[in-house]
Amino acid sequence: PLLAAALEAGEGIDIRALLAEALHMGDEGHNRNKAGSLLYLRHLAHRIVKVKADDALKEKVLAFLGDNALSVLNPVMAACKAMADAGHGVEGSTMVTAMARNGTDFGIRVSGLGERWFTAPAQIPDGLYFPGFSSEDANADIGDSTITETAGIGGFAMASAPAIVSFVSGTPQDALNATLEMYEITIAEHSHFTIPPLDFRGTPTGIDFRKVVELGIAPRVNTGIAHKEPGVGQVGAGLVRPPMAIFEQALMAYAETYNL
Amino acid sequence: PLLAAALEAGEGIDIRALLAEALHMGDEGHNRNKAGSLLYLRHLAHRIVKVKADDALKEKVLAFLGDNALSVLNPVMAACKAMADAGHGVEGSTMVTAMARNGTDFGIRVSGLGERWFTAPAQIPDGLYFPGFSSEDANADIGDSTITETAGIGGFAMASAPAIVSFVSGTPQDALNATLEMYEITIAEHSHFTIPPLDFRGTPTGIDFRKVVELGIAPRVNTGIAHKEPGVGQVGAGLVRPPMAIFEQALMAYAETYNL
Repeated sequence: PLLAAALEAGEGIDIRALLAEALHMGDEGHNRNKAGSLLYLRHLAHRIVKVKADDALKEKVLAFLGDNALSVLNPVMAACKAMADAGHGVEGSTMVTAMARNGTDFGIRVSGLGERWFTAPAQIPDGLYFPGFSSEDANADIGDSTITETAGIGGFAMASAPAIVSFVSGTPQDALNATLEMYEITIAEHSHFTIPPLDFRGTPTGIDFRKVVELGIAPRVNTGIAHKEPGVGQVGAGLVRPPMAIFEQALMAYAETYNL
Repeated sequence: PLLAAALEAGEGIDIRALLAEALHMGDEGHNRNKAGSLLYLRHLAHRIVKVKADDALKEKVLAFLGDNALSVLNPVMAACKAMADAGHGVEGSTMVTAMARNGTDFGIRVSGLGERWFTAPAQIPDGLYFPGFSSEDANADIGDSTITETAGIGGFAMASAPAIVSFVSGTPQDALNATLEMYEITIAEHSHFTIPPLDFRGTPTGIDFRKVVELGIAPRVNTGIAHKEPGVGQVGAGLVRPPMAIFEQALMAYAETYNL
């Protein structure tokens, strides 16, 4: 409630601008939101002081926001959802406008194919586990945060975040290569989200399911790894790709819908 | 005074650890301290709430700290000074332990050559000017912040901060090259300050004046540019190098001191 009051105590926060800045500060906007969360704290700190509430509570909220390197992820997901939805429902469009997993299946929606979901069993992510956990404990890929990759950040913006490899495994060169590979299956380069190490090239944005199927390159997704027992929570972080089958399904449905 | 009370309201802040983290977030620690300043805000925000003071004042201080992308530079300079001084006064050492400019001269001190300063006229930095100003307005290079380069960050850590080129001019490749060049004239690679795009290689640290003279490569310094009239303040930011003459002077003095 204190946070809600603080958010209402000022103008709206431009999350797209915040993300653009965070991508210049070593974030990729999904698994690494260190800079974004601090930028969020910066927007909120002076507002929190203004709210009528107990000082001890304000202190606790500020300490929590500062210590949580993913505090901005939920607003970021909402912003990415708004961006992706803006591209949904365009007749004939082959762009993927949503990717999500429920712990059992991985599903996508396509702009030109209405409300239909294309789904197939989700995979186990490949990554680093917190001490005491291993892939034995991992649930199949889960969560809605893949909306970040759908909108052109996260796994698609790895080149912005060389330091992330200490969290999701790999080398800084792998991070560069991940972004370069995603240019192969996307429609555009983002005009707001740019990558300094690639000479400020825009992030690869807008997955075209035809390119995915043609090239056999599935999108790269950065993700947290959840324990398979409820209540345990996150046990690691890593990389995963959606099953190719869902893009093939989309291709078949597209051919049917548009009589190709 | 509010800030002083906030600083006293908790443990000391480990600026070396803060810098190490900021170098993984696109800072080089001298001209670009965006991430470092936000990390500083994160340490201070909840402490500021705790201090007994007017809420309106707290709000103002938090907004100022958040809006000032260089708010941590002064503590960083103090920390770098402490690190560099720790290496001063070692008999026979050819390491530069201080670099500073007073707007007229550029001076250095050397670990094995006592309290003596080697000085020569300072140059005009090469860089980008704020709107309405040009190199006509620039004073000769000024300030003590070159202690950051002396300690292995700033111009020496450019490879960590590809986004800085929009502020100091150049391309991200220039930023990488700047750091690579500095390995030529330094003694060690920093064990705490590492550079993700160079596979977490330590920053080039500890200028050896012999290497500077032998290779003809002067240290690279990132700097603000001050107006030549007092009171106007900063009019731009850019790159500068100290005059070669001061390293040659140091070499002569070293030969004399140690009877070489």
